[in-house]
Amino acid sequence: MSPESEAAAPKRRRGGGRRGAADRRGSAVIEQMPWKIPYNTDAPTEPLTPEGVEAVHDGAMRILEEIGIEILNAEALEIFRKAGCTISGENVRMGRDMVLEYVAMAPSEWTLTPRNPDRTLPVGGNAMIFGNVSSPPNYWDMSLGTKVAGTREQCANLMRLTQYFNCIHFAGGYPVEPVDIHASVRHLDVMYDKLCITDKVVHTYSLGKERVEDTMEMVRIAGGLTHEEFDATPRMYTNINSTSPLKHDIPMLDGWMRMARRRQGLVVTPFTLAGAMAPVTMSGAVAQSLAEGLIAVVLAQIISPGAPCAIGTFTSNVDMKSGAPAFGTPEYMRATQMTGQMARFYGLPMRASGVCAANVPDGQAMWETSNSLWSAVQSGTNMVYHAAGWLEGGLIASPEKFIMDCEILQMIQRYFDPDICKTGPDEIALDAIAEVGNDGHFFGIQHTQDRYQTAFYQPFVSDWRNYEAWESAGGVQTPERAHHLFRQIIDTFEEPPLDVAIKEELAAFVAMRKEEGGAPTDF
Amino acid sequence: MSPESEAAAPKRRRGGGRRGAADRRGSAVIEQMPWKIPYNTDAPTEPLTPEGVEAVHDGAMRILEEIGIEILNAEALEIFRKAGCTISGENVRMGRDMVLEYVAMAPSEWTLTPRNPDRTLPVGGNAMIFGNVSSPPNYWDMSLGTKVAGTREQCANLMRLTQYFNCIHFAGGYPVEPVDIHASVRHLDVMYDKLCITDKVVHTYSLGKERVEDTMEMVRIAGGLTHEEFDATPRMYTNINSTSPLKHDIPMLDGWMRMARRRQGLVVTPFTLAGAMAPVTMSGAVAQSLAEGLIAVVLAQIISPGAPCAIGTFTSNVDMKSGAPAFGTPEYMRATQMTGQMARFYGLPMRASGVCAANVPDGQAMWETSNSLWSAVQSGTNMVYHAAGWLEGGLIASPEKFIMDCEILQMIQRYFDPDICKTGPDEIALDAIAEVGNDGHFFGIQHTQDRYQTAFYQPFVSDWRNYEAWESAGGVQTPERAHHLFRQIIDTFEEPPLDVAIKEELAAFVAMRKEEGGAPTDF
Repeated sequence: MSPESEAAAPKRRRGGGRRGAADRRGSAVIEQMPWKIPYNTDAPTEPLTPEGVEAVHDGAMRILEEIGIEILNAEALEIFRKAGCTISGENVRMGRDMVLEYVAMAPSEWTLTPRNPDRTLPVGGNAMIFGNVSSPPNYWDMSLGTKVAGTREQCANLMRLTQYFNCIHFAGGYPVEPVDIHASVRHLDVMYDKLCITDKVVHTYSLGKERVEDTMEMVRIAGGLTHEEFDATPRMYTNINSTSPLKHDIPMLDGWMRMARRRQGLVVTPFTLAGAMAPVTMSGAVAQSLAEGLIAVVLAQIISPGAPCAIGTFTSNVDMKSGAPAFGTPEYMRATQMTGQMARFYGLPMRASGVCAANVPDGQAMWETSNSLWSAVQSGTNMVYHAAGWLEGGLIASPEKFIMDCEILQMIQRYFDPDICKTGPDEIALDAIAEVGNDGHFFGIQHTQDRYQTAFYQPFVSDWRNYEAWESAGGVQTPERAHHLFRQIIDTFEEPPLDVAIKEELAAFVAMRKEEGGAPTDF
Repeated sequence: MSPESEAAAPKRRRGGGRRGAADRRGSAVIEQMPWKIPYNTDAPTEPLTPEGVEAVHDGAMRILEEIGIEILNAEALEIFRKAGCTISGENVRMGRDMVLEYVAMAPSEWTLTPRNPDRTLPVGGNAMIFGNVSSPPNYWDMSLGTKVAGTREQCANLMRLTQYFNCIHFAGGYPVEPVDIHASVRHLDVMYDKLCITDKVVHTYSLGKERVEDTMEMVRIAGGLTHEEFDATPRMYTNINSTSPLKHDIPMLDGWMRMARRRQGLVVTPFTLAGAMAPVTMSGAVAQSLAEGLIAVVLAQIISPGAPCAIGTFTSNVDMKSGAPAFGTPEYMRATQMTGQMARFYGLPMRASGVCAANVPDGQAMWETSNSLWSAVQSGTNMVYHAAGWLEGGLIASPEKFIMDCEILQMIQRYFDPDICKTGPDEIALDAIAEVGNDGHFFGIQHTQDRYQTAFYQPFVSDWRNYEAWESAGGVQTPERAHHLFRQIIDTFEEPPLDVAIKEELAAFVAMRKEEGGAPTDF
């Protein structure tokens, strides 16, 4: 290959690359990867020995047998009583045989089917799905430059990002809490927005009877489903947190039981910060988290045997200097991996998170988030909450962080592409190596031409230009590039199709429930 | 535990934590982790099936058997000829039996002993050691705000960081190329600086006879060693790159052979960018990299059976839009993991890198670097080059990036601490869980008090405060915090002890060699 043809070849490929990729990916603002369920083919990282697994299991079982969990919800307490648990006041204890018998009823794999069935999600097995940041009360973006209380508009914009990015598989809770909507009707307005803006799987908060019943009804309407159809397979999911240590509160269990009866997706995630709400030792924190989680799984199975459950981990550590929660730490990673081993031991799908302690989308934010996301991969996590947009230990949602995180999520999706590690004759490519010899370049050869459009991951917010090209284009750093993309995506966003009659029915339901006063706000 | 005592407890711990940690870590500027060799206890991630390993091996062998490698160094060519290889011009071919016979002579584990024997390093097995960025021609720091050509002072400052941080185990090549020193004597001045500033293992460039001989002599002097003592065990190491595709040049092989004869550490790292200097398919790029690397190992073993070798990977991909190299990509991660499998197949220690394409130490820099560092962990890499301070695909060294990377390296070191995953009765902590019950806090209990000083990783550049505390302290983002630490570390840096007579002998050697004209600069 002559120097001349070498110089010419990249030009041809550049043009071709852009056209080809746009055809393949079809997006106005960025060339993103197509919608796809990633399957985690890596053997999980297992820091616990078999004896360690038994020790953590034994710890969790002894917590349930000897110490017990406080169940503040009277209805749940009565269900546990009838099932044969030992009740003392609000303290519930049960033998490990009973725990294992009920946990075994929970399926190890299940699905979530949203209003667009093309977006149906597998939960469990090797599937790994990602959802947006949920529940921060505050919002930060570069145009504001400071932390502000969340609004409905910010919440809607973050849901537009959720819909836009193919690497986000499900919509979590409120991507930012819209505190400009009264709490009594917030669930109605946000669920309406959510069901219009996205056709992906949605979440509901287990915050008492009215919110759960209202949002189940809205998801049913949005899907154009009968009640029987809604109940037949999980259409949405909830996530509850225990009040660690060793306590489940009234509204969360209420929602949990309502969702269990209708066989919707059930995720329980104790918030066990080691050294604060759990032992300072990570295996103890994991054992406690499991005990708190498993009792909720047992409750769901008593009510509705076979109800789809997943066990979550939010075990991290506090900063012992300040008491502040820390995320993406080595201890967090190991706790996530240990919980993965235990989830497989119990045959339950697992949920973890993409989290950080950093306050702004800078270097620290990205190494902490990388640590948490890679530990999700290493642990065999199935559902990754907060996978995009999380800052300040979950107190801030940021669109720039959302977009930066999506680059990592796309890379994880590509990382799982088995094509990268193919070793057939075409990939070992002896003929190509012989053709180029020791004095040429692989740019121009047919073996490269046939593959260059799909051979490598193509980033959308990373800047791979050299310093001079980057500087002469303004020297724009990552968060600012992400901010620019955020504006473009929002400006050109188009809602997914939704039948007009369904939209009207949803609006009418919201209006009716508002007239009725929405949900009580006394908790 | 009463609310009052809860409030009081964190204050006591904060004070105690600082004192305790300072005692334990003993550092003026930051509380860093102690010097320690991390051992990687994770099972490696293995994307290749056993058949895949055989296919990549077969590819590498067929390259050596059928296509051959161009050996530009006449002395090396003669050695290969005498050993029975098929020579055609400068093309060298050999059968797989010969390759495997010689590769089997290379030890799977060896050591590197610097002038301070307390800093002796294991190479191979489960040990994982980290070195600083090497060889960027340019430098960037926040006070400059732009990219500039490297100087001796910048080079020395980066070596001070190398010495300062316990998580950096070995000194690589020039952490930035000091272009203000003439190339003929650069190796003399920098090696003098290096041997004064650091007592850790040092590297030398294989850039022709004089540089290698001069620097071996200087390392011998610095260690107070006889020639026999120097030759008895590896005291330093070199790294050579092939001129991919399929070529080894004159000066690098010259240095390689000189180092082999004196049984110093030998690392060969082909620079095989898929789609440019290697096939666009990753397994082909890995096979080619192995062929280029293994022929150097064979050369070393012919010259000096049992010489300590390691095989490096620098297989990544180019950006097919611009031709620019990309780092920390999914393809990079998988290539590193595949090479790890192959290094174990051949029984050789492995070298990888901590790398990124980003131009400044922002979010992109940290997710790319995190990807590359975690793939080093996943692949079972033994030596991690460029683990701190690398930007712009290796064209820029940055002290801020250096310090930010050291936070990740410390976290990896802590991640390997088996204490995190202990599952004895003290760690499962049933008594502590029973003691706290469902209405308390683990902050104040004895189980926590006994462990909080060492229970969790403590960061030095991460800011774990909440947004308000962070903002009121100036809202300083990660690179600026790193810059501040950089200044403090340099301002208070103290060189490790070095005998005055040795220092004088080193200075005299440098002066003599300068009078003699240093090294030729005609290549």
